[in-house]
Amino acid sequence: MTASYYSQALHGPYETRDLGDFELESGDKIRGLKLAYATFGKLSARRDNAILFPSWYSGTSKILERAYVGAGRALDPDKYFIILVNQIGAGLSSSPSNSAPPFDAARFPRITIADDVRAQHRLVTEAFGVERLALVLGGSMGAQQTYEWAARFPEAVRRAAPIAGLARGTAHNRLLVSTFIDAIVSDPAFDDGWYERAALVHRGLRRHARIFAASGFSPALFNTRGWSDLGFSTPDDFVAGFVEGHFLPQDPNNLVLLLSKWRDADASRLENGDLARALGRISAKTFVIAIKEDGFFPLADLEAEQKLIAGSELRRVSSPWGHLALFGTDPAYNAAIDRHLEELLAS
Amino acid sequence: MTASYYSQALHGPYETRDLGDFELESGDKIRGLKLAYATFGKLSARRDNAILFPSWYSGTSKILERAYVGAGRALDPDKYFIILVNQIGAGLSSSPSNSAPPFDAARFPRITIADDVRAQHRLVTEAFGVERLALVLGGSMGAQQTYEWAARFPEAVRRAAPIAGLARGTAHNRLLVSTFIDAIVSDPAFDDGWYERAALVHRGLRRHARIFAASGFSPALFNTRGWSDLGFSTPDDFVAGFVEGHFLPQDPNNLVLLLSKWRDADASRLENGDLARALGRISAKTFVIAIKEDGFFPLADLEAEQKLIAGSELRRVSSPWGHLALFGTDPAYNAAIDRHLEELLAS
Repeated sequence: MTASYYSQALHGPYETRDLGDFELESGDKIRGLKLAYATFGKLSARRDNAILFPSWYSGTSKILERAYVGAGRALDPDKYFIILVNQIGAGLSSSPSNSAPPFDAARFPRITIADDVRAQHRLVTEAFGVERLALVLGGSMGAQQTYEWAARFPEAVRRAAPIAGLARGTAHNRLLVSTFIDAIVSDPAFDDGWYERAALVHRGLRRHARIFAASGFSPALFNTRGWSDLGFSTPDDFVAGFVEGHFLPQDPNNLVLLLSKWRDADASRLENGDLARALGRISAKTFVIAIKEDGFFPLADLEAEQKLIAGSELRRVSSPWGHLALFGTDPAYNAAIDRHLEELLAS
Repeated sequence: MTASYYSQALHGPYETRDLGDFELESGDKIRGLKLAYATFGKLSARRDNAILFPSWYSGTSKILERAYVGAGRALDPDKYFIILVNQIGAGLSSSPSNSAPPFDAARFPRITIADDVRAQHRLVTEAFGVERLALVLGGSMGAQQTYEWAARFPEAVRRAAPIAGLARGTAHNRLLVSTFIDAIVSDPAFDDGWYERAALVHRGLRRHARIFAASGFSPALFNTRGWSDLGFSTPDDFVAGFVEGHFLPQDPNNLVLLLSKWRDADASRLENGDLARALGRISAKTFVIAIKEDGFFPLADLEAEQKLIAGSELRRVSSPWGHLALFGTDPAYNAAIDRHLEELLAS
């Protein structure tokens, strides 16, 4: 199942850039690091209309394209050159599931958000000759990458829109993410990551999907049966069809790698753990966009970081889909996001 | 471990009432059903000062006593005759862990909240001759029992204070509770409930404790290190010391039984699934008390039920401890609860 899931057929068209041997923050390295990305629109002659949008947990560039890119949307290919880049470990870029032994599966190196951002910086500068991005944005783990971009490469980021995510995880968020990891690795079939086939770990993947759903959507979504327009019937039908169905074809080692990256994300490492100094490096015009009903990244936590960024603004959106409104299932959320992004892009 | 945990030494003094063979809602029965309870204060000559307070998930009468009963508190033994009763299945009353084969462990019958309330009604009338309670109150699963009491025996309940709980679980709450069950039963050592010793299931109990903690406390508790006054250091130290420490000595079958009772609680069964009619039966003066930060039972869900109860009031309290403020760890919560209960008792 895994091989057919991480495919051009389902997630393409996408291209791949080989960055050669890539040294990681840990001191470990990836041999022949490949970044998978998709672009939309044309780079202007002055190379000043590029937008970078890194992927979130368990998503690929395809869901970003479907949910955020299009004529008449804020991310309009008629105006902008939009680069949707896939995180390391998410199945299209170099990942546990597509690496050759012995550096595959459970032996794939640990990755940090900073590793992703350093690799993406090379992609943007080397493949496209872009020195300054008109906008970096991302949701959830994409927000983690957005913060890291804006703080690590301030001159390269003109505008930033971290959505529903944090520069540094709170203790609560780390606990939550650790429960997601545990749901997968506790399945005996996971076998420390050395399962023969990903589908054998379906019990762990289902368990992970259910605890993810319990905090990822707002309670109100369940009460209002917000999924009925999508063709789901009971709450169980929705959780199985939408959430278990999303995770079951994915690779457990990929998910665990992404989750550990999510849990440990910390832009303050740029300044030896001083978050105020790290966020003080940001010169981008920044809209921090919070989803009021977000059970993964509560508004108050986003606001605390936003206050550390000079000239930034906190923008609130609302959706019964909670954190997972990011998926684009709620037209009201999509419209609200577009309004904020259009205003930011016009500034 | 289990035997010494469910003991007079840790949870007493308590008394036990044998109700004989007890027929359950399911048609199954418990042979020699025993209800464990503790009383404080003296029953008045007119038998009009009795307060009933059933236990919540994984708690016993001891924590109710410590957190809510005392001179100068709303539940003052100088004024009231306070009956703290232990739910069936919680380890002191008849439970999987203390029943004789073959009706022990995984074969203990399924119980509903209505079974508990019917048994408690017999305790109150037969042991104490009390026909009308001055107040029934309870938190979480105790609130489920409070709703069932007030709707099933309206003449027997003069006042009611369901705290941080619902008469009928929402789809979201049922999903959440199903993840708690799954965390325990997915441990291979659980062995369908036929483990040799409860301590062997510690991995499942720890996993359960961590997902319970992730939604039971508010994110703000973690951010403000609200546990430091209790002597905990890091977030992991707190979760292990406070939450894993709470669950590890308990019996997995007991917890799974309680969780299934929690998940399936539904006072509307009194009126064939018509919740408005079921709650319309309530004649008690009712304060529905919601904890604003409650991740298990959101305020909006409590408010929706409160509106179905004639003459009731919604009272809001706030605590970074979220749902688990019920434990009495937050002095501000304790004071707020007392104010509401005193006002209710004076009405």
